[in-house]
Amino acid sequence: MTTAEQLATRSSTPACDDGVCGAAGMTVPDSERTAAVFKALADPVRLRLYSRIAATGGETCVCDIQDVGVSQPTVSHHLRKLRDAGLIDCERRGTWVYYWAVPGALGPLASVLDAHTQLITR
Amino acid sequence: MTTAEQLATRSSTPACDDGVCGAAGMTVPDSERTAAVFKALADPVRLRLYSRIAATGGETCVCDIQDVGVSQPTVSHHLRKLRDAGLIDCERRGTWVYYWAVPGALGPLASVLDAHTQLITR
Repeated sequence: MTTAEQLATRSSTPACDDGVCGAAGMTVPDSERTAAVFKALADPVRLRLYSRIAATGGETCVCDIQDVGVSQPTVSHHLRKLRDAGLIDCERRGTWVYYWAVPGALGPLASVLDAHTQLITR
Repeated sequence: MTTAEQLATRSSTPACDDGVCGAAGMTVPDSERTAAVFKALADPVRLRLYSRIAATGGETCVCDIQDVGVSQPTVSHHLRKLRDAGLIDCERRGTWVYYWAVPGALGPLASVLDAHTQLITR
């Protein structure tokens, strides 16, 4: 199970809405799962790669996302980090690997941000 | 101007809604500003500190957020990172420093997540 999948499972449980447990704030397990996915998005190159893949709305050939200003091995490294976090997935077909953004993977992160925004502005 | 303030300013400009510029995805400057704020939230201890401060809905004495499982100097280090990113601010009063979550600082991040979620599910 990827980090994003764990986060989605956790967010669907009823205890502590959106991982924010009253005045105590986030629990240790929730903070660890959520921080891991934020970390995947905490690099400008990874964020541009993710954005490029998501922006297609479908599959993207790795051959079309090599122009983000870093070497091909670095692109591969960042794509692996995004995949390990459960934000993207891929499939090899012949010479090329095709990537897509995993639907729903950003939802739990958005819920955490929304829950905290509501706490701040209440 | 903090990173979160730069991000809020950028997000209010009309070009490229939410920093997602069509099929090209995020621009380099947008990805750098956004990744910097994600990075501030990409650590479990920082996330719990931020959550604890936000959960009060007001000010939190630093004396009340020392029990996150790390040493006091490490707490101070993480609070500085959150402050540098523009997510929290503080004021010293006598012996103690009081922290609060900056209203609106999470908004641009939430917009980026929402914009990409819409791209993926369209």
